Amino acid sequence: MLNELIRIATKSGEMLKAGYLNRQDLFFKGKIDLVTNYDREIELYIIDEIKKIDNDALIVSEEYNCDKDTFQEAYIIDPIDGTTNFVHRFPFCAISIAFYAKNERFGVVYNPIMEEIFYAQTGKGAFLNGEKIYVDKELKVMNSLIATGFPYTVVERNSELIIRMLERVLKNSRGIRRAGSASLDLCYVAKSVFQGYYESGLKPWDVAAGIVIVEEAGGKISNLSGGKFSFNDDFIVATNGFIHEELLGILNGC
Amino acid sequence: MLNELIRIATKSGEMLKAGYLNRQDLFFKGKIDLVTNYDREIELYIIDEIKKIDNDALIVSEEYNCDKDTFQEAYIIDPIDGTTNFVHRFPFCAISIAFYAKNERFGVVYNPIMEEIFYAQTGKGAFLNGEKIYVDKELKVMNSLIATGFPYTVVERNSELIIRMLERVLKNSRGIRRAGSASLDLCYVAKSVFQGYYESGLKPWDVAAGIVIVEEAGGKISNLSGGKFSFNDDFIVATNGFIHEELLGILNGC
Repeated sequence: MLNELIRIATKSGEMLKAGYLNRQDLFFKGKIDLVTNYDREIELYIIDEIKKIDNDALIVSEEYNCDKDTFQEAYIIDPIDGTTNFVHRFPFCAISIAFYAKNERFGVVYNPIMEEIFYAQTGKGAFLNGEKIYVDKELKVMNSLIATGFPYTVVERNSELIIRMLERVLKNSRGIRRAGSASLDLCYVAKSVFQGYYESGLKPWDVAAGIVIVEEAGGKISNLSGGKFSFNDDFIVATNGFIHEELLGILNGC
Repeated sequence: MLNELIRIATKSGEMLKAGYLNRQDLFFKGKIDLVTNYDREIELYIIDEIKKIDNDALIVSEEYNCDKDTFQEAYIIDPIDGTTNFVHRFPFCAISIAFYAKNERFGVVYNPIMEEIFYAQTGKGAFLNGEKIYVDKELKVMNSLIATGFPYTVVERNSELIIRMLERVLKNSRGIRRAGSASLDLCYVAKSVFQGYYESGLKPWDVAAGIVIVEEAGGKISNLSGGKFSFNDDFIVATNGFIHEELLGILNGC
């Protein structure tokens, strides 16, 4: 299964990279249309390949629009995570493919621009380009680099909450990074670049693969209360585990 | 002159990359000490090489600590711009070397991790890895990706101003990116990844080379009032030119 998902992600990554590098298309077709075209094209390719290996597969994706975790077993895919980066050619965009079953999960996140492929399988560890990766051992938020995101709709809806959280994290950490791709932010927690990450208003396909990768790298995922994260939660918090409680306290203003 | 600066930056970049990749050093020597060591080692190398080509050179850098623009002619250098990224291995860190004379300026910014070398010379255009680069043609902040930074001291000193500015930009742009290196943020304006960038509390060595690169790529640099930027100004604002007035209005809350 994992090898199949890696193969599909690798092939999709070539399509993503071609779009990323193709300045003429961006120039002539208009930015929004272009993204939609590449998004759809890559998504259709991934779904087609998944159907070949599992004809009855349930697919959870932007197009299929099943955004709550009511499923028992599903492939959860994002053809381009970080679409704004894709359009602007900021090098953090990725294919995200996960398979969630009752007792086993798989996650693959591939950034073809930086040539980084992350993958993990329940109980088997997390890998980057074939090498095992682990979360960082840092114990304090003050020595940590924290990633976050500001989805546009959330900024409109609940700007004061988001802004105050950001202010508290800025004052209590080594720094904030906003790279613009949830799946890669999670992978960078797994790779021990970031010690923590939080964001709200995300969809299952933004985080499903990254969650498996963080957990298999030894990290911790929760909702904003510290409880088990579900796709119905507004906030996701991911850390190396060691700073989890402290970061939750800062986010909640305790 | 430009070729000499490119040669010095390229060689320094090898030293930076070696430090970035050397996990053992990071692990054994402690994070703060390590950065200081690499910072000093690269800075001494750059100064040494500059003295070879210009023995009477005035050097403006963190160590020499001449942080106002009272000089007539100087080399302005940052051995590692993005030191937090360097320590955490987030791939945005760079060598920044500029030469400012009365009628001519040179700037070189080299990120050896992403293998991107940006350079420019007054009146000769801006280049990335040998290819000419230009700022983006976008006319509206709402379609723009805006980079910024939050220096720790500024967050402590004037948190409300910085936070409110960020909130206004979030609500009026396509998105914010915080990658953690001022010199590369400027180069990414020049490369048309970002349409605008603003930050406060920076030192001359953070921005001197990047300013030349943005201007030679067709962009605009000013202070927060829209006046000519000087190293004594608290804020720097860099854009593609087209969105400059609109971004200034948003930053100033007009």
